[in-house]
Amino acid sequence: VLRGIGEDAAIIRPSARRQWLITTDLLAEGVHFLAGEANAVDIGYKAALANLSDIAAMGGIPHYVLVSIAIPASRSTRDIERLYQGLMRACRTHHVELIGGDTSSSRQGLFISITLIGSVTPGRALRRDGARAGDLLYVTGTLGDSLAGLTLLTRASRNLGRSMRGLSLTHQRYLIGRHMRPSPRLRAGQLLSSLRLATSAIDISDGLAGDLSRLCEQSGIGADLETKRIPCSAALKAYCRLTRRDPTKLALQGGEDYELLFTARPGNAARLARLGRRFGCRLSCLGVIRSKRDGLRLRGPQGKTTRLTLRGYEHFHAPDDRRS
Amino acid sequence: VLRGIGEDAAIIRPSARRQWLITTDLLAEGVHFLAGEANAVDIGYKAALANLSDIAAMGGIPHYVLVSIAIPASRSTRDIERLYQGLMRACRTHHVELIGGDTSSSRQGLFISITLIGSVTPGRALRRDGARAGDLLYVTGTLGDSLAGLTLLTRASRNLGRSMRGLSLTHQRYLIGRHMRPSPRLRAGQLLSSLRLATSAIDISDGLAGDLSRLCEQSGIGADLETKRIPCSAALKAYCRLTRRDPTKLALQGGEDYELLFTARPGNAARLARLGRRFGCRLSCLGVIRSKRDGLRLRGPQGKTTRLTLRGYEHFHAPDDRRS
Repeated sequence: VLRGIGEDAAIIRPSARRQWLITTDLLAEGVHFLAGEANAVDIGYKAALANLSDIAAMGGIPHYVLVSIAIPASRSTRDIERLYQGLMRACRTHHVELIGGDTSSSRQGLFISITLIGSVTPGRALRRDGARAGDLLYVTGTLGDSLAGLTLLTRASRNLGRSMRGLSLTHQRYLIGRHMRPSPRLRAGQLLSSLRLATSAIDISDGLAGDLSRLCEQSGIGADLETKRIPCSAALKAYCRLTRRDPTKLALQGGEDYELLFTARPGNAARLARLGRRFGCRLSCLGVIRSKRDGLRLRGPQGKTTRLTLRGYEHFHAPDDRRS
Repeated sequence: VLRGIGEDAAIIRPSARRQWLITTDLLAEGVHFLAGEANAVDIGYKAALANLSDIAAMGGIPHYVLVSIAIPASRSTRDIERLYQGLMRACRTHHVELIGGDTSSSRQGLFISITLIGSVTPGRALRRDGARAGDLLYVTGTLGDSLAGLTLLTRASRNLGRSMRGLSLTHQRYLIGRHMRPSPRLRAGQLLSSLRLATSAIDISDGLAGDLSRLCEQSGIGADLETKRIPCSAALKAYCRLTRRDPTKLALQGGEDYELLFTARPGNAARLARLGRRFGCRLSCLGVIRSKRDGLRLRGPQGKTTRLTLRGYEHFHAPDDRRS
């Protein structure tokens, strides 16, 4: 950055050897966060995280951030400082520099707009439209933790903490941490990009079902998933045993996991398995990409098949299922 | 742009021969525009314009725009379409391409965040901190028109139109047009940058007094202006005669003129005068840059000196004035 805050615009000198990635998000009070329940540090952290995760899903390296905030009179200066603290906590870890933005008053609620600028080797950006029938479908980390963490936090704030006695403090802390301080999968995205291992990728911010539907739509494909392959953490399993919930359902519908969902040619499966440790997280193969007309199907433990839709999933009997 | 809307981030391939300019603005309902009085097309146009003007003030060429909107339930789809129409009307004129953004619902009012990406020849960006004592102070176009136009619109909406009978329709249309469809001074900025004619520049969005104060602060200088040199349009003069207002006051305090205020070495004065026509607008020399301790002084027609402040201006007698 040659000139940043204080000028009409930030000036950056791009490298001729990199393509630039630009992503932007607008977060609204009452929609993305609630006035009462969220700490300003948490709001800031997650606002930055959503954009860092977008750069991860493209296989890029994040560099610069611009932050605009519309501030209602009800917020104190201390709140805004905390918000920037949270933002910069997420950004600093990845050496992302604040280069500009805008501050405005707001008559009605807090609004935050973040623009993140990253870069990627030319031609190596991971895209949403590259998946083909026959590819394998992978996901990083574990799913559903964030939603379980949010539920724990909500219970705690409503003094229902007692009912979580059966869940160890370690498990509770893990799930809450996954909700409040998720990590963008930048390293995984960069490896997939630099080693050309992914045919497509997307980050999971709206739950596996929603973001897989999006990937399928943009690649013009369908997919077969196996329930037992959906990665769930030990903490999530313990939480689900206690609350009599279905961990698969949480993984499919829970949002804000910020894991990467990607597809790869079957010929790269062995290489992906060997690379596992370098990703810095678990890597799971969920199933296989099918043609568009096959749609999205989830095969359960007893061989029962469920059709997934964008808004969640509904039970149905697939033709081969009906025969049995 | 290699990949735009539909991906996690837009991908752009920068040229090694250009530096990149990034600017962002957040506009809030009730602060930057009112729900009732502004047409969605106008809101969109001016949201884009503020950012285009920032690129103009740096001497850059605008290329790409990202638009995020938080939409309250009270707004119709048609409103949002109109808003984009206005945005794109301002952008298309300058060949600016929409490459991404975000849409969110809003519980409380309409919010628009715009990020504009431009470019400039390396080392040629116009800055706010380059003015030195002895430089001449220039401004493009005329000042105060936008505020007069806004007042006319407000009167019209309150059915006070009759009292404007004394003002010709041409003058009324001109002033209202300057308020509703101001042009970013991109050509002027680009000429100043490419010919290295400006030592500093800023766009006037908060009135001459406010933005000159900002320029002085960032360059660490003061300035002497002459009232009679402040450029006012014939329409503004006619409006002021009729309403018994002081055109200088409107020029100093009126916002949203989006003209460029810049400084140049005295040796370039003749060249600037010759270039006039290529700027596509009037060019006026307002006065001369002084040292910081001289502050901001405005010399009136009778030699009376006024001290300018950030919030407007207040009358005072300068030492040399008191002697007379």
